[in-house]
Amino acid sequence: MAEYIESLRLLAERFGRLEGVGKKTAMRMAFSVLELELEDAQAFAQAIMDAREKIHLCPVCQNLTDREICPICSDEERDHGVICVVTDARTVMAMEKVREFRGVYHVLHGLISPMNGITPDKLKIRELLSRVGEGEVEEVIVATNPTVEGEATAMYLSKLLKPLGVRVTRLAYGVPVGADLEYADEITLFRALEGRRDV
Amino acid sequence: MAEYIESLRLLAERFGRLEGVGKKTAMRMAFSVLELELEDAQAFAQAIMDAREKIHLCPVCQNLTDREICPICSDEERDHGVICVVTDARTVMAMEKVREFRGVYHVLHGLISPMNGITPDKLKIRELLSRVGEGEVEEVIVATNPTVEGEATAMYLSKLLKPLGVRVTRLAYGVPVGADLEYADEITLFRALEGRRDV
Repeated sequence: MAEYIESLRLLAERFGRLEGVGKKTAMRMAFSVLELELEDAQAFAQAIMDAREKIHLCPVCQNLTDREICPICSDEERDHGVICVVTDARTVMAMEKVREFRGVYHVLHGLISPMNGITPDKLKIRELLSRVGEGEVEEVIVATNPTVEGEATAMYLSKLLKPLGVRVTRLAYGVPVGADLEYADEITLFRALEGRRDV
Repeated sequence: MAEYIESLRLLAERFGRLEGVGKKTAMRMAFSVLELELEDAQAFAQAIMDAREKIHLCPVCQNLTDREICPICSDEERDHGVICVVTDARTVMAMEKVREFRGVYHVLHGLISPMNGITPDKLKIRELLSRVGEGEVEEVIVATNPTVEGEATAMYLSKLLKPLGVRVTRLAYGVPVGADLEYADEITLFRALEGRRDV
Protein backbone atom coordinates (compact mmCIF):
# COMPACT_ATOMS: atom_id res chain seq x y z
CA MET A 1 0.00 0.00 0.00
CA ALA A 2 2.92 2.29 0.72
CA GLU A 3 3.60 1.76 -2.96
CA TYR A 4 0.32 3.57 -3.59
CA ILE A 5 0.84 6.38 -1.10
CA GLU A 6 3.81 8.31 -2.35
CA SER A 7 3.94 10.80 0.53
CA LEU A 8 3.93 7.99 3.10
CA ARG A 9 6.73 6.18 1.29
CA LEU A 10 8.77 9.39 1.10
CA LEU A 11 8.31 10.07 4.81
CA ALA A 12 9.34 6.52 5.76
CA GLU A 13 12.38 6.92 3.54
CA ARG A 14 13.34 10.10 5.47
CA PHE A 15 13.00 8.35 8.82
CA GLY A 16 15.12 5.52 7.46
CA ARG A 17 18.02 7.91 6.92
CA LEU A 18 18.37 8.52 10.65
CA GLU A 19 21.02 6.59 12.53
CA GLY A 20 19.92 3.11 13.62
CA VAL A 21 16.44 3.26 12.06
CA GLY A 22 15.55 0.19 9.95
CA LYS A 23 12.94 -0.13 7.22
CA LYS A 24 10.12 -1.54 9.39
CA THR A 25 10.71 1.01 12.15
CA ALA A 26 10.79 3.83 9.60
CA MET A 27 7.42 2.77 8.19
CA ARG A 28 5.94 2.43 11.68
CA MET A 29 7.09 5.95 12.53
CA ALA A 30 5.66 7.31 9.26
CA PHE A 31 2.28 5.79 10.16
CA SER A 32 2.64 7.33 13.60
CA VAL A 33 2.96 10.78 12.03
CA LEU A 34 -0.42 10.31 10.32
CA GLU A 35 -2.00 9.86 13.74
CA LEU A 36 -0.63 13.17 15.04
CA GLU A 37 -2.91 16.18 15.31
CA LEU A 38 -2.19 18.65 12.51
CA GLU A 39 -0.64 21.19 14.89
CA ASP A 40 1.59 18.48 16.40
CA ALA A 41 2.79 17.49 12.93
CA GLN A 42 3.53 21.15 12.23
CA ALA A 43 5.41 21.48 15.54
CA PHE A 44 7.39 18.34 14.70
CA ALA A 45 8.40 19.69 11.28
CA GLN A 46 9.29 23.02 12.88
CA ALA A 47 11.35 21.30 15.60
CA ILE A 48 13.44 19.60 12.91
CA MET A 49 14.15 22.90 11.18
CA ASP A 50 14.78 24.74 14.46
CA ALA A 51 17.26 22.15 15.69
CA ARG A 52 19.04 21.94 12.36
CA GLU A 53 19.23 25.71 11.84
CA LYS A 54 19.84 26.99 15.37
CA ILE A 55 22.33 24.44 16.63
CA HIS A 56 25.97 24.98 15.67
CA LEU A 57 29.37 24.34 17.22
CA CYS A 58 30.54 26.47 20.15
CA PRO A 59 33.63 28.30 18.84
CA VAL A 60 35.46 27.56 22.11
CA CYS A 61 34.78 23.91 22.96
CA GLN A 62 33.22 22.71 19.66
CA ASN A 63 30.23 21.30 21.51
CA LEU A 64 26.75 21.70 20.05
CA THR A 65 24.90 24.80 21.16
CA ASP A 66 22.14 27.15 20.10
CA ARG A 67 23.84 30.17 21.71
CA GLU A 68 26.85 32.15 20.52
CA ILE A 69 29.14 30.60 23.16
CA CYS A 70 27.82 27.46 24.87
CA PRO A 71 26.54 27.79 28.47
CA ILE A 72 29.39 25.67 29.84
CA CYS A 73 32.13 27.78 28.24
CA SER A 74 30.44 31.01 29.28
CA ASP A 75 29.94 29.81 32.88
CA GLU A 76 32.33 31.81 35.10
CA GLU A 77 31.76 29.38 37.98
CA ARG A 78 33.40 26.51 36.14
CA ASP A 79 37.11 25.75 36.20
CA HIS A 80 38.45 26.79 32.82
CA GLY A 81 41.85 25.37 33.79
CA VAL A 82 40.64 21.79 33.37
CA ILE A 83 39.51 20.61 29.94
CA CYS A 84 37.79 17.26 29.50
CA VAL A 85 38.31 16.06 25.92
CA VAL A 86 35.47 13.91 24.58
CA THR A 87 34.62 12.22 21.31
CA ASP A 88 31.18 13.69 20.73
CA ALA A 89 28.43 15.89 22.10
CA ARG A 90 26.58 12.91 23.54
CA THR A 91 29.48 12.16 25.87
CA VAL A 92 29.29 15.74 27.20
CA MET A 93 25.68 14.99 28.04
CA ALA A 94 26.66 11.80 29.89
CA MET A 95 29.47 13.59 31.79
CA GLU A 96 27.21 16.47 32.79
CA LYS A 97 24.78 14.03 34.37
CA VAL A 98 27.49 13.11 36.90
CA ARG A 99 27.26 16.68 38.24
CA GLU A 100 30.76 16.28 39.70
CA PHE A 101 32.92 17.65 36.92
CA ARG A 102 33.31 21.42 37.22
CA GLY A 103 35.81 21.97 34.42
CA VAL A 104 35.06 22.61 30.76
CA TYR A 105 34.98 20.38 27.67
CA HIS A 106 36.46 19.99 24.26
CA VAL A 107 34.61 17.92 21.67
CA LEU A 108 36.81 16.18 19.07
CA HIS A 109 33.93 15.05 16.85
CA GLY A 110 35.43 11.63 16.25
CA LEU A 111 38.45 9.47 16.98
CA ILE A 112 41.59 8.98 14.94
CA SER A 113 40.94 6.01 12.66
CA PRO A 114 43.18 5.83 9.58
CA MET A 115 41.33 2.71 8.40
CA ASN A 116 38.17 4.81 8.06
CA GLY A 117 39.99 7.80 6.65
CA ILE A 118 39.74 9.80 9.88
CA THR A 119 43.11 11.45 10.20
CA PRO A 120 43.95 13.88 13.06
CA ASP A 121 43.32 16.92 10.83
CA LYS A 122 39.64 15.86 10.50
CA LEU A 123 39.14 16.23 14.26
CA LYS A 124 38.99 19.40 16.38
CA ILE A 125 42.57 18.90 17.60
CA ARG A 126 43.96 22.16 16.23
CA GLU A 127 41.33 24.05 18.24
CA LEU A 128 42.29 22.12 21.39
CA LEU A 129 45.99 22.91 20.97
CA SER A 130 45.19 26.56 20.48
CA ARG A 131 43.13 26.61 23.71
CA VAL A 132 45.90 24.94 25.68
CA GLY A 133 48.48 27.21 24.00
CA GLU A 134 46.83 30.23 25.58
CA GLY A 135 48.43 29.11 28.85
CA GLU A 136 45.47 29.11 31.24
CA VAL A 137 44.95 25.34 31.09
CA GLU A 138 46.50 23.18 33.83
CA GLU A 139 45.04 19.80 33.04
CA VAL A 140 43.57 18.00 30.06
CA ILE A 141 41.49 14.90 30.89
CA VAL A 142 41.31 12.74 27.77
CA ALA A 143 37.93 11.05 28.15
CA THR A 144 37.79 9.15 24.88
CA ASN A 145 36.19 5.68 24.88
CA PRO A 146 38.42 2.90 26.30
CA THR A 147 38.66 1.24 22.88
CA VAL A 148 41.59 0.81 20.49
CA GLU A 149 40.76 4.01 18.62
CA GLY A 150 40.01 5.88 21.84
CA GLU A 151 43.34 4.87 23.36
CA ALA A 152 45.25 5.69 20.16
CA THR A 153 43.67 9.14 20.04
CA ALA A 154 44.53 9.67 23.73
CA MET A 155 48.17 8.72 23.11
CA TYR A 156 48.33 11.01 20.10
CA LEU A 157 46.90 13.92 22.08
CA SER A 158 49.19 13.39 25.08
CA LYS A 159 52.23 13.51 22.81
CA LEU A 160 51.09 16.85 21.44
CA LEU A 161 49.92 18.30 24.77
CA LYS A 162 52.69 17.35 27.20
CA PRO A 163 55.34 19.55 25.51
CA LEU A 164 52.98 22.48 26.19
CA GLY A 165 53.56 21.92 29.93
CA VAL A 166 50.06 20.74 30.73
CA ARG A 167 49.10 17.73 32.86
CA VAL A 168 47.42 15.09 30.69
CA THR A 169 45.20 12.53 32.39
CA ARG A 170 42.96 9.70 31.32
CA LEU A 171 39.76 8.51 32.98
CA ALA A 172 40.39 5.60 35.38
CA TYR A 173 39.38 2.19 34.15
CA GLY A 174 36.24 2.29 36.20
CA VAL A 175 34.64 2.40 32.79
CA PRO A 176 34.32 -1.19 31.51
CA VAL A 177 36.84 -1.74 28.71
CA GLY A 178 35.29 -1.83 25.25
CA ALA A 179 32.12 -0.02 26.30
CA ASP A 180 30.59 3.19 25.01
CA LEU A 181 30.80 6.14 27.41
CA GLU A 182 27.36 7.29 26.38
CA TYR A 183 25.82 4.27 28.08
CA ALA A 184 27.94 4.26 31.24
CA ASP A 185 25.98 4.76 34.44
CA GLU A 186 26.56 7.88 36.50
CA ILE A 187 28.36 6.20 39.41
CA THR A 188 30.79 4.44 37.08
CA LEU A 189 31.51 7.73 35.36
CA PHE A 190 31.99 9.44 38.72
CA ARG A 191 34.43 6.75 39.95
CA ALA A 192 36.31 6.94 36.67
CA LEU A 193 36.61 10.70 37.09
CA GLU A 194 37.88 10.39 40.68
CA GLY A 195 40.51 7.79 39.87
CA ARG A 196 41.93 9.56 36.80
CA ARG A 197 45.66 8.99 36.27
CA ASP A 198 48.57 10.64 34.46
CA VAL A 199 49.19 9.34 30.94
CA MET B 1 23.66 19.01 27.79
CA ALA B 2 20.27 18.59 26.19
CA GLU B 3 19.18 20.67 29.17
CA TYR B 4 21.23 23.49 27.65
CA ILE B 5 20.09 23.03 24.07
CA GLU B 6 16.40 23.78 24.08
CA SER B 7 15.82 23.06 20.39
CA LEU B 8 17.50 19.64 20.67
CA ARG B 9 15.43 18.75 23.72
CA LEU B 10 12.24 19.84 21.94
CA LEU B 11 13.09 17.77 18.87
CA ALA B 12 13.84 14.67 20.96
CA GLU B 13 10.54 15.21 22.74
CA ARG B 14 8.74 15.23 19.36
CA PHE B 15 10.42 11.98 18.28
CA GLY B 16 9.46 10.48 21.64
CA ARG B 17 5.77 11.01 20.83
CA LEU B 18 5.92 8.54 17.96
CA GLU B 19 4.72 5.01 18.59
CA GLY B 20 7.37 2.75 20.13
CA VAL B 21 10.10 5.39 20.42
CA GLY B 22 11.76 5.54 23.85
CA LYS B 23 13.69 8.42 25.43
CA LYS B 24 17.19 7.24 24.44
CA THR B 25 16.14 6.44 20.88
CA ALA B 26 14.40 9.81 20.57
CA MET B 27 17.58 11.63 21.65
CA ARG B 28 19.70 9.57 19.28
CA MET B 29 17.37 10.45 16.40
CA ALA B 30 17.44 14.14 17.34
CA PHE B 31 21.26 14.07 17.20
CA SER B 32 20.96 12.32 13.85
CA VAL B 33 18.94 15.23 12.48
CA LEU B 34 21.79 17.60 13.33
CA GLU B 35 24.04 15.58 11.05
CA LEU B 36 21.70 15.93 8.07
CA GLU B 37 22.50 18.37 5.29
CA LEU B 38 20.30 21.46 5.54
CA GLU B 39 18.32 20.52 2.43
CA ASP B 40 17.77 17.00 3.78
CA ALA B 41 16.44 18.42 7.04
CA GLN B 42 14.13 20.67 5.02
CA ALA B 43 12.95 17.71 2.92
CA PHE B 44 12.34 15.72 6.12
CA ALA B 45 10.23 18.50 7.64
CA GLN B 46 8.36 18.87 4.35
CA ALA B 47 7.75 15.09 4.15
CA ILE B 48 6.10 15.20 7.57
CA MET B 49 3.76 18.00 6.52
CA ASP B 50 3.05 16.42 3.13
CA ALA B 51 2.17 13.06 4.62
CA ARG B 52 0.04 14.58 7.35
CA GLU B 53 -1.79 16.98 5.04
CA LYS B 54 -2.23 14.91 1.88
CA ILE B 55 -3.16 11.55 3.34
CA HIS B 56 -6.78 11.03 4.33
CA LEU B 57 -9.26 8.14 4.42
CA CYS B 58 -10.65 6.75 1.18
CA PRO B 59 -14.42 7.43 1.36
CA VAL B 60 -15.14 3.90 0.08
CA CYS B 61 -12.83 1.54 1.97
CA GLN B 62 -11.56 3.89 4.74
CA ASN B 63 -7.96 3.01 3.90
CA LEU B 64 -5.31 5.73 3.89
CA THR B 65 -4.77 7.43 0.55
CA ASP B 66 -3.50 10.64 -0.97
CA ARG B 67 -5.99 10.47 -3.85
CA GLU B 68 -9.71 11.16 -3.87
CA ILE B 69 -10.61 7.44 -4.09
CA CYS B 70 -7.79 5.02 -3.22
CA PRO B 71 -6.11 3.15 -6.11
CA ILE B 72 -7.50 -0.20 -4.94
CA CYS B 73 -11.12 0.99 -4.84
CA SER B 74 -10.77 2.75 -8.20
CA ASP B 75 -9.16 -0.32 -9.85
CA GLU B 76 -11.72 -1.79 -12.29
CA GLU B 77 -9.67 -4.98 -12.58
CA ARG B 78 -10.26 -5.93 -8.96
CA ASP B 79 -13.22 -7.94 -7.73
CA HIS B 80 -15.49 -5.48 -5.93
CA GLY B 81 -17.71 -8.38 -4.89
CA VAL B 82 -15.20 -9.57 -2.30
CA ILE B 83 -14.34 -7.28 0.62
CA CYS B 84 -11.48 -8.12 2.96
CA VAL B 85 -12.11 -6.43 6.32
CA VAL B 86 -8.93 -5.48 8.19
CA THR B 87 -8.07 -3.69 11.43
CA ASP B 88 -5.75 -1.04 10.07
CA ALA B 89 -3.98 0.33 7.01
CA ARG B 90 -0.81 -1.60 7.82
CA THR B 91 -2.63 -4.89 7.38
CA VAL B 92 -3.72 -3.79 3.90
CA MET B 93 -0.05 -3.29 3.14
CA ALA B 94 0.78 -6.80 4.39
CA MET B 95 -2.12 -8.34 2.40
CA GLU B 96 -1.15 -6.52 -0.79
CA LYS B 97 2.34 -8.00 -0.56
CA VAL B 98 0.79 -11.46 -1.04
CA ARG B 99 -0.26 -10.35 -4.55
CA GLU B 100 -2.94 -13.08 -4.52
CA PHE B 101 -5.95 -11.22 -3.24
CA ARG B 102 -7.81 -9.51 -6.08
CA GLY B 103 -10.79 -8.23 -4.10
CA VAL B 104 -11.07 -4.93 -2.25
CA TYR B 105 -10.64 -3.91 1.40
CA HIS B 106 -12.44 -2.28 4.25
CA VAL B 107 -10.41 -0.80 7.10
CA LEU B 108 -12.10 -0.81 10.51
CA HIS B 109 -9.47 1.36 12.25
CA GLY B 110 -9.46 -0.73 15.39
CA LEU B 111 -11.11 -3.71 17.05
CA ILE B 112 -14.06 -3.81 19.40
CA SER B 113 -12.68 -3.56 22.93
CA PRO B 114 -15.18 -2.37 25.54
CA MET B 115 -12.43 -2.48 28.21
CA ASN B 116 -10.57 0.24 26.29
CA GLY B 117 -13.71 2.15 25.46
CA ILE B 118 -13.72 1.05 21.83
CA THR B 119 -17.35 0.33 21.09
CA PRO B 120 -18.59 -0.71 17.61
CA ASP B 121 -19.72 2.84 16.80
CA LYS B 122 -16.07 4.01 17.03
CA LEU B 123 -15.08 1.72 14.16
CA LYS B 124 -15.89 2.02 10.44
CA ILE B 125 -18.62 -0.63 10.71
CA ARG B 126 -21.48 1.60 9.56
CA GLU B 127 -19.56 2.29 6.35
CA LEU B 128 -19.03 -1.45 5.82
CA LEU B 129 -22.73 -2.24 6.27
CA SER B 130 -23.65 0.48 3.81
CA ARG B 131 -21.22 -0.95 1.23
CA VAL B 132 -22.62 -4.45 1.67
CA GLY B 133 -26.16 -3.07 1.68
CA GLU B 134 -25.68 -1.83 -1.88
CA GLY B 135 -26.04 -5.47 -2.95
CA GLU B 136 -22.94 -5.95 -5.13
CA VAL B 137 -20.95 -7.74 -2.45
CA GLU B 138 -20.90 -11.56 -2.42
CA GLU B 139 -18.33 -12.27 0.26
CA VAL B 140 -16.81 -10.52 3.23
CA ILE B 141 -13.51 -11.97 4.48
CA VAL B 142 -13.03 -10.84 8.06
CA ALA B 143 -9.22 -10.66 8.37
CA THR B 144 -8.92 -9.32 11.87
CA ASN B 145 -6.03 -10.57 14.04
CA PRO B 146 -6.57 -14.06 15.55
CA THR B 147 -6.72 -12.61 19.08
CA VAL B 148 -9.58 -12.33 21.55
CA GLU B 149 -10.55 -8.87 20.33
CA GLY B 150 -10.07 -9.84 16.70
CA GLU B 151 -12.32 -12.88 17.08
CA ALA B 152 -14.95 -10.93 19.00
CA THR B 153 -15.03 -8.27 16.29
CA ALA B 154 -15.31 -10.98 13.63
CA MET B 155 -18.26 -12.58 15.46
CA TYR B 156 -19.95 -9.20 15.85
CA LEU B 157 -19.52 -8.43 12.15
CA SER B 158 -20.76 -11.83 10.99
CA LYS B 159 -23.95 -11.39 13.02
CA LEU B 160 -24.61 -8.07 11.31
CA LEU B 161 -23.55 -9.19 7.83
CA LYS B 162 -25.16 -12.59 7.43
CA PRO B 163 -28.76 -11.27 7.50
CA LEU B 164 -27.76 -9.14 4.49
CA GLY B 165 -27.35 -12.38 2.50
CA VAL B 166 -23.59 -12.18 2.12
CA ARG B 167 -21.06 -14.97 2.64
CA VAL B 168 -18.88 -14.18 5.66
CA THR B 169 -15.51 -15.92 5.92
CA ARG B 170 -12.54 -15.78 8.23
CA LEU B 171 -8.86 -16.32 7.35
CA ALA B 172 -7.73 -19.91 7.96
CA TYR B 173 -5.63 -20.50 11.04
CA GLY B 174 -2.52 -20.60 8.97
CA VAL B 175 -1.75 -17.42 10.82
CA PRO B 176 -0.16 -18.34 14.18
CA VAL B 177 -2.68 -17.70 16.98
CA GLY B 178 -1.92 -14.60 19.04
CA ALA B 179 0.28 -13.02 16.40
CA ASP B 180 0.01 -9.67 14.65
CA LEU B 181 -0.98 -9.86 10.97
CA GLU B 182 1.39 -7.04 10.14
CA TYR B 183 4.36 -9.29 10.87
CA ALA B 184 3.07 -12.45 9.20
CA ASP B 185 5.19 -13.65 6.31
CA GLU B 186 3.75 -13.65 2.83
CA ILE B 187 3.40 -17.42 2.44
CA THR B 188 1.54 -17.74 5.74
CA LEU B 189 -0.81 -14.97 4.69
CA PHE B 190 -1.30 -16.65 1.30
CA ARG B 191 -2.12 -20.04 2.91
CA ALA B 192 -4.47 -18.36 5.33
CA LEU B 193 -6.24 -16.71 2.43
CA GLU B 194 -6.57 -19.98 0.49
CA GLY B 195 -8.01 -21.93 3.43
CA ARG B 196 -10.54 -19.33 4.52
CA ARG B 197 -13.72 -20.79 6.02
CA ASP B 198 -17.33 -19.78 6.66
CA VAL B 199 -18.01 -18.23 10.05
